[in-house]
Amino acid sequence: MKKRILLPDEERVTQWYNVMADMPGGMHPPLNPATKQPLTPDLMAPIFPMGLLEQEMSDKRWIDIPEEIQDIWSIWRPSPLVRANFLEEKLGTKAKIYFKYEGVSPSGSHKTNSAVVQAYYNKREGVKRLATETGAGQWGSALAFATHKFGLECKVYMVRVSYDQKPYRKSMMHTYGAEIVPSPSPDTPTGRAILAKDPNTPGSLGIAISEALEDAVSREDTKYALGSVLNHVCLHQTIIGLEAKKQLAMIGESPDVVIGCCGGGSNFAGLAAPFLPDKLEGKDIRLIGVEPASCPSLTKGIYAYDFGDVSERTPLLYMYTLGHDFMPPGIHAGGLRYHGMSPIVSAMLRENLMEAMALHQVECFEAGVLFAQTEGIIPAPESCHAIRAAIIEATKDPKEPKTILFNLSGHGHLDLSSYDKFFAGELHNFEYPAEAVAEAKKHLPKI
Amino acid sequence: MKKRILLPDEERVTQWYNVMADMPGGMHPPLNPATKQPLTPDLMAPIFPMGLLEQEMSDKRWIDIPEEIQDIWSIWRPSPLVRANFLEEKLGTKAKIYFKYEGVSPSGSHKTNSAVVQAYYNKREGVKRLATETGAGQWGSALAFATHKFGLECKVYMVRVSYDQKPYRKSMMHTYGAEIVPSPSPDTPTGRAILAKDPNTPGSLGIAISEALEDAVSREDTKYALGSVLNHVCLHQTIIGLEAKKQLAMIGESPDVVIGCCGGGSNFAGLAAPFLPDKLEGKDIRLIGVEPASCPSLTKGIYAYDFGDVSERTPLLYMYTLGHDFMPPGIHAGGLRYHGMSPIVSAMLRENLMEAMALHQVECFEAGVLFAQTEGIIPAPESCHAIRAAIIEATKDPKEPKTILFNLSGHGHLDLSSYDKFFAGELHNFEYPAEAVAEAKKHLPKI
Repeated sequence: MKKRILLPDEERVTQWYNVMADMPGGMHPPLNPATKQPLTPDLMAPIFPMGLLEQEMSDKRWIDIPEEIQDIWSIWRPSPLVRANFLEEKLGTKAKIYFKYEGVSPSGSHKTNSAVVQAYYNKREGVKRLATETGAGQWGSALAFATHKFGLECKVYMVRVSYDQKPYRKSMMHTYGAEIVPSPSPDTPTGRAILAKDPNTPGSLGIAISEALEDAVSREDTKYALGSVLNHVCLHQTIIGLEAKKQLAMIGESPDVVIGCCGGGSNFAGLAAPFLPDKLEGKDIRLIGVEPASCPSLTKGIYAYDFGDVSERTPLLYMYTLGHDFMPPGIHAGGLRYHGMSPIVSAMLRENLMEAMALHQVECFEAGVLFAQTEGIIPAPESCHAIRAAIIEATKDPKEPKTILFNLSGHGHLDLSSYDKFFAGELHNFEYPAEAVAEAKKHLPKI
Repeated sequence: MKKRILLPDEERVTQWYNVMADMPGGMHPPLNPATKQPLTPDLMAPIFPMGLLEQEMSDKRWIDIPEEIQDIWSIWRPSPLVRANFLEEKLGTKAKIYFKYEGVSPSGSHKTNSAVVQAYYNKREGVKRLATETGAGQWGSALAFATHKFGLECKVYMVRVSYDQKPYRKSMMHTYGAEIVPSPSPDTPTGRAILAKDPNTPGSLGIAISEALEDAVSREDTKYALGSVLNHVCLHQTIIGLEAKKQLAMIGESPDVVIGCCGGGSNFAGLAAPFLPDKLEGKDIRLIGVEPASCPSLTKGIYAYDFGDVSERTPLLYMYTLGHDFMPPGIHAGGLRYHGMSPIVSAMLRENLMEAMALHQVECFEAGVLFAQTEGIIPAPESCHAIRAAIIEATKDPKEPKTILFNLSGHGHLDLSSYDKFFAGELHNFEYPAEAVAEAKKHLPKI
């Protein structure tokens, strides 16, 4: 048995897979919130470089990965595919469990994949500086690393509760040369307005997105970068699934179940989308997105046009949403605290091409500890959701020899204080209130 | 150019290299401190399992690596050999810089290599529980992981200043199921005596070693484990250099300079010792051990028999030492704060088979930041010493196309607060006082 399946350099993946080309029902276009008409690339040009906007709208099935990106990716890519045989043994299952390990990237999560691509296209088009937001800090530290590699400046608006709770994420971003402020900050109109109302607000991802957008549109030299949700981000992350397919093929395997956790949706889409063509051709593959039960856009959300941020500044995206003013409870998987879901993942769910599973955080941390003690890697709280789902699938019928593949999207080295809280019995589960959906519906933009 | 050179499973290293078999002048045996006579294995049997004692005394050149160890090692081994081309570019050097990356292990450093071996031999001989000390926490977390894998209990005495400063290391050990107490602790006679005198003492590695030893001898079911210094630990770490040699051979390279940082000496010996036979055969290879200028056992120490701990409980080892009562200043490379040096490394230096270099911590952190910004990986403060030395070697004569290999012994994810201090300008250098050696000489045991 091979523990780690390493893809030889010669087998390196050189094209992204664009799942939009294969979506049976097509995709609802993003809308201009002012006119409610489909957005045109020129309207987004102050915010994103054309290279990324083309990808955002593209219907080409395969898109070349520029060599400059592959060069930097080679620091950690191809990432390993690993057989979780020690976990299997502990579970007493006949299922084979494989995971793709994205924690090997410099900033420790899959986010670095898209960060390098976004920095590259911005640099190519003469952008000097990027503004972005970050929740738990994975995206901010990924973009800090990537911008520095391309000689760009970077300003990160970090949700204040995370800024205070995860000091090591700040240190990492500083080490990579980025500027970080807690959000809401006094640096933007939205930030100042919210601070004036409530100086002690913990902040939210929706607020931080608004601030970063305001920063980007207020400066000629600056554009904006988003770490998930959008089509181009999901596209960049397909490198994960494309590599995994090749690695599984090397050992004559193919998965029956493919699992990823879902916040904005890019790590799930990145792993799962490349398996969609097989599924559409009739192959029996289940794709499972795992979300927190406290922020359950896929299992409890409304499928509708909604804003991506609190201040109603983004284009309208057609997606599963809990309402753009929904404030997710303070679970420790900060990367999964988002009211919406990638339009790509939303469309996959709507068309029954995937399943959704909602889990509570305590059982996910239990799974994370079991994983650390068997497989050695301490997983990020977000990734613990995928691990829990993999364990559920592997033990439902432990005699069934199915093959499970999940995305271990990041390590938990900078989340160890969350593990402390888990061991101290201080972690709680949060129920999503049943009446919240009806309330959210009232605040959706009218189309 | 290949960025990462990955050793195929078929090429896996299956034997350790025992450098004692090739040491031209032989080795001074450890002495029983009571009789001053060479130690016999039976005297050490209450402390170490026979499997490890045999390795400690062995003169066999090659020693088989048991399969059970290779199985667990396969979680992260073979570790990658990486070309630091982005760093080379930044330095504008013609030198080729390669590093062996040991931060991929579960606990994030090379220490996990020996931890698995030590847990294995203890388990095989019926031991139920291990006691150990840890300074910065790398060894403690490595042993916590390894003991749990073999179903052993583990108690870690962690130097109190680190216990307070590095809370994430505690969390990691807890996640792997170990018990941790700050040292000095009320759990041992030595700990109680020191606490009675000074309840606020920061502790030291020498004290923690004494406590762990007392714990081990006081319980039938318990033995002791040490993370560096001893011959068997250096032996286990030769996996690093043996793999690196094979990986370099795969691309037709061989190093002109081999560099590792030196605390107890095991990560340097692990990388460098396998190159010693080539050197003895006349090949022009420089082996450089890098130590902190504030704790300079190799460059300022006395070559003599000394104790390994403060309480004079260990056997006497012939080594470079600053005196067993030397209290190293609070530098951030906690793993390099030790008064002595592995007898193997000491003998290599004495016989001019290696060179020693002493560096101050601020310049090492500068090197670490440069490395993070170019190569992506944030290095442990200990490893920053090796990076600095590699940069010095690569830029002395930047037109000389030499090949440099260094050991990146661990990542710095749990040391990010040290980086914060560096950025805040709060890190200082400590000079080793010139008069300290004469003082230390007075306290050496009389042989």
